[in-house]
Amino acid sequence: MVQHSPIDRTFAALADPTRRGILERLGTGSATISELAEPFGITLTGTKKHVQVLEDAELVSTAKVGRERRCSLGPRRLDDVEQWVAMYRRMLEERLDRFGELIERTKGVHP
Amino acid sequence: MVQHSPIDRTFAALADPTRRGILERLGTGSATISELAEPFGITLTGTKKHVQVLEDAELVSTAKVGRERRCSLGPRRLDDVEQWVAMYRRMLEERLDRFGELIERTKGVHP
Repeated sequence: MVQHSPIDRTFAALADPTRRGILERLGTGSATISELAEPFGITLTGTKKHVQVLEDAELVSTAKVGRERRCSLGPRRLDDVEQWVAMYRRMLEERLDRFGELIERTKGVHP
Repeated sequence: MVQHSPIDRTFAALADPTRRGILERLGTGSATISELAEPFGITLTGTKKHVQVLEDAELVSTAKVGRERRCSLGPRRLDDVEQWVAMYRRMLEERLDRFGELIERTKGVHP
């Protein structure tokens, strides 16, 4: 029914603490699947699955180097996620402003 | 295994275009389940499920008014999501800076 767009896949990929941890680790430099698996104490199969979700969301790119697969960040920049979150924040603030004005009018405040 | 924290639930809740649409609609004011269902062309049951996911993530609060359930935004502010995305952007930029420096050194550029 619903077509999943890049922003959907990105939000879904970021909804897991291990996947966010993998991205944070890759921020310090590229790593193999086994280097990623170790600090999180998860299996290679589990790590590969998380990396696949991140790769589908274009948050991670991988390349075969010899017998290993090296993972690095990118190419996605999260601009659309940032814009959506900023829009939501503005929306909340406007709602609070309107609520504040309503309270002021109800109180009939005079300086 | 993995405990789902508020930020996990929030990212997961935002990973669906209908749920983001519901939040955008609630930004203009509160609405009943049927008012929310109509513009998206989804069933009441489907709408209730989406609202439940948003409520679990504290992005929506609901209150029974007479025979209807009114939905409104809040109380969650997305501060943690915003911080995580900003951290990710800084990380990407630092990585690009390091990459740029490496290229400059490799080229042995002299002004």
